[in-house]
Amino acid sequence: MEEQKAIGILDSGVGGLTVVKEVFRQLPKEKVIYFGDTARCPYGPRLLEEVKEFTLEIVDFLLAQNVKMIVIACNTATAAALQEVKKKVKIPVVGVIRPGSLSAIKHTQTGEIGVIGTEGTIQSGAYENTLKQINPKLKVTSHACPTLVPLVESGIEDEITIRQVVKDALKPILSQKMDSLILGCTHYPLISKYIQEVVGDQVKLLSSAEETAREVSTILHHQNLLNQTENEPEHHFYTTGDVVHFKQIAEKWLGRAIEVTHIELAKKNEEKSSIKK
Amino acid sequence: MEEQKAIGILDSGVGGLTVVKEVFRQLPKEKVIYFGDTARCPYGPRLLEEVKEFTLEIVDFLLAQNVKMIVIACNTATAAALQEVKKKVKIPVVGVIRPGSLSAIKHTQTGEIGVIGTEGTIQSGAYENTLKQINPKLKVTSHACPTLVPLVESGIEDEITIRQVVKDALKPILSQKMDSLILGCTHYPLISKYIQEVVGDQVKLLSSAEETAREVSTILHHQNLLNQTENEPEHHFYTTGDVVHFKQIAEKWLGRAIEVTHIELAKKNEEKSSIKK
Repeated sequence: MEEQKAIGILDSGVGGLTVVKEVFRQLPKEKVIYFGDTARCPYGPRLLEEVKEFTLEIVDFLLAQNVKMIVIACNTATAAALQEVKKKVKIPVVGVIRPGSLSAIKHTQTGEIGVIGTEGTIQSGAYENTLKQINPKLKVTSHACPTLVPLVESGIEDEITIRQVVKDALKPILSQKMDSLILGCTHYPLISKYIQEVVGDQVKLLSSAEETAREVSTILHHQNLLNQTENEPEHHFYTTGDVVHFKQIAEKWLGRAIEVTHIELAKKNEEKSSIKK
Repeated sequence: MEEQKAIGILDSGVGGLTVVKEVFRQLPKEKVIYFGDTARCPYGPRLLEEVKEFTLEIVDFLLAQNVKMIVIACNTATAAALQEVKKKVKIPVVGVIRPGSLSAIKHTQTGEIGVIGTEGTIQSGAYENTLKQINPKLKVTSHACPTLVPLVESGIEDEITIRQVVKDALKPILSQKMDSLILGCTHYPLISKYIQEVVGDQVKLLSSAEETAREVSTILHHQNLLNQTENEPEHHFYTTGDVVHFKQIAEKWLGRAIEVTHIELAKKNEEKSSIKK
């Protein structure tokens, strides 16, 4: 039965778990297979061409697990590879940039929208293009925050350090007018408390995680793919990195025990890495 | 060009204008053709079989206007006819019950959700079924408010009267636990200020209007039907009732001048009306 298959969710690391948490909450009957490419994280500073290659490789892995849908729960990978993946596979594919954009369009009253994300996402202009394609009158301010993904992946819990890194990262946007700020990276909801403190309560933070889970629900319904069985679904988590470290961050965020499997991808692409140091 | 066609939006009267307002706001490049069946309003107390017949008749009218998508912006008509309309037409069809349900699922923290709507909508169990199909553990309290549609359609502006009618209508749900209340009728956002006063600030009101416009955006995108032209779109409004009365309520709600055309449908169905008096 097609609808009883799992949803495949991928990210550069633990960021996509924010989408998983929302899928668990909004679609509790759905099975999830998660792939976090921790060994090659962060994707943000890499060339989009390389991120596309990594994403296609993970998509192949998920297709081999027989998933019914693919969620690219990484903004950089969405910017780099969504169109390519859509062309390649026959099952529905959802990225995180359109749901985040629609959420901002729904919430903004002033039409002034901020976007923060990785260098790759911001340089791609994907949010600005999506927002302006729908409404050319929106005023969009974008800003890259390259220090935030490493902060989240490190698992640091010291509040003083986190506050300082977040404050420094957001400084340039504090003088910009906006009533909505898109968290254009799935890692950011993990530190949204600190982001909210810095930008102030008058700015609504919009997480693509919540909206992506809602989008997944819509697409599954329109394709007759919502799981109808009553059983407690089983989930699988894979990481290319350290299992213990991944499990620790994931269980804390998801609030439940999970099984994590280490996996090596065929092409490691370490040598030709495009990370700008 | 398929994507330059209008979106057809229908309702029993002025309620669907709450969806139109959100489509104008969230999708400013899209043309709208609106049909308000004011002469046969309210739909709520009618047999669902009759509402289905009315809806299919209006769908025929909209198809003749060459629309690219149909939005059944009436909860009663969605409960009565969505499946039938979907079977009948080849263009995408969106109702208001699923978007409203997904919005509640996204917002609820306690899992306790209230629904208010017309007798037809509540008796159909459509919200409860949609919510529980996705998450069987939700606690759903439903309540019919038959006096609210006539209140909105009357255009009454006297606040004391509105407050009293709303208070009486909502009394039975005030003792129920809920953190989210679905406005399961597109007329209700027109009086949401008063509903919020009665239920209190701790209950989040969820309007299917906002969420339906967002759903329309998703579906149009996935079908490659988003309008890409830069022109200011033209809209058309049709009512089976009094043009002046409709125009007055509509212009106040939409905050802009509109052209309204009176239209008579072939079958008036007045004689075999199923309204329970």
